[in-house]
Amino acid sequence: VGLLHLVLAESALELVPEPLWSHPAVSRSAKTRAKSPRDILLDDTHHHSAMRAAAQKRQFADPERRGRPDIVHLALLVALESRLNHEGLLRVWIHTRDDRWIEVAPDLHIQRAQHRFIGLMENLLRDGRVPPAGKGEPLMVSRSNVTLADGIRSTGATRVVVLDENGETEDSALEAVLSASGDVAVIVGGYPTGPFRNDLSAFGPVRLRLGTRPLAAWTVVAEIVVRHERALANRGADPR
Amino acid sequence: VGLLHLVLAESALELVPEPLWSHPAVSRSAKTRAKSPRDILLDDTHHHSAMRAAAQKRQFADPERRGRPDIVHLALLVALESRLNHEGLLRVWIHTRDDRWIEVAPDLHIQRAQHRFIGLMENLLRDGRVPPAGKGEPLMVSRSNVTLADGIRSTGATRVVVLDENGETEDSALEAVLSASGDVAVIVGGYPTGPFRNDLSAFGPVRLRLGTRPLAAWTVVAEIVVRHERALANRGADPR
Repeated sequence: VGLLHLVLAESALELVPEPLWSHPAVSRSAKTRAKSPRDILLDDTHHHSAMRAAAQKRQFADPERRGRPDIVHLALLVALESRLNHEGLLRVWIHTRDDRWIEVAPDLHIQRAQHRFIGLMENLLRDGRVPPAGKGEPLMVSRSNVTLADGIRSTGATRVVVLDENGETEDSALEAVLSASGDVAVIVGGYPTGPFRNDLSAFGPVRLRLGTRPLAAWTVVAEIVVRHERALANRGADPR
Repeated sequence: VGLLHLVLAESALELVPEPLWSHPAVSRSAKTRAKSPRDILLDDTHHHSAMRAAAQKRQFADPERRGRPDIVHLALLVALESRLNHEGLLRVWIHTRDDRWIEVAPDLHIQRAQHRFIGLMENLLRDGRVPPAGKGEPLMVSRSNVTLADGIRSTGATRVVVLDENGETEDSALEAVLSASGDVAVIVGGYPTGPFRNDLSAFGPVRLRLGTRPLAAWTVVAEIVVRHERALANRGADPR
């Protein structure tokens, strides 16, 4: 039975970049948490004004697509608590906007409290893994300078499906690719809005969108994991 | 085309009850938020010690099933951002453990930040609606002393499906009931663990469970909304 490799791509997950370290909104939120500004996650909820100010000075690009750890959090909660994952048929990978590639262990238990998830990701981006070396098997490992294309290749998937707003609205095509044999990689944006920036045409991917309206990342993740699980179950029940 | 009435039942959503008002964990979290202890949501993340202490004094029952607003939050994010809801085919209702019955407008935009969601629900439970009267159309309305059975009846659904760990593991039965005509009510627990306390046998419901392991409430919600949307789409494509 084939695995589903779920790739959250160009995810809006990063530590606060240097041009924002001295902004009052950043130093305030770092102080509240007794951390240095360079060691905290960029978060639009708290750093919106800092992001806008730096963008106006041309020191910070694409503010509307950055600083949204909540998107990765919700997508992970939906993916890792799914039946597909319980059945051992899901692998989750996080690619970030700045080309980090994060491997997520299927038995990672994601904490539901947002502030705890944020602390976990800060530790991951600082140390490259959680828990730290010597404290047990890694639940997440982060590597730098891995492009989205390199990451997708590393999964070994034989088929690639890209879901974004430039794809074709054709639900039957999704069912067909999910129920075929072999491993499949499904690429879902881990950011708020817009099409992918990376060029993925080298994979000759199936390009799809779900419905006609923009959807939240976790909504797309829910559809993919539920429909893949159903496609496998139906294939098992009716082995043509 | 039939509506899906999603009912989050016996949800772990309530204001801090009186026996806990004077506990240090409660007064500390109320003070941090500049509110009175009676006006804040019970939250296991912050009030765990208060819940345990009151339970030991027999002033507080079932601590393992209470104080989990995060469950309702995640279930609402999954349900309201779904394609089924975008298509106008979903109604969401929240029944709480203490028999409140909350109507949720399909166009409610749930805030992703947990502390904002908590503030919203505190206003709802205090005022009975949000936004308050005179400030526009209600997005949520809460009524007291509505039993789960009364609430389910009020939806007008002609079929009732109960999903809990005492149900039958039979996925094809779910597909059949979701794709039949008329409105269907699906009852999902809005609490962490265990079977329902309410007796729903009067509805002659279809009793099901998904898979063999306990699932998070939002996982069940994701399966139901995705599979209902697919069942309707397939019925439309193949009108036998």
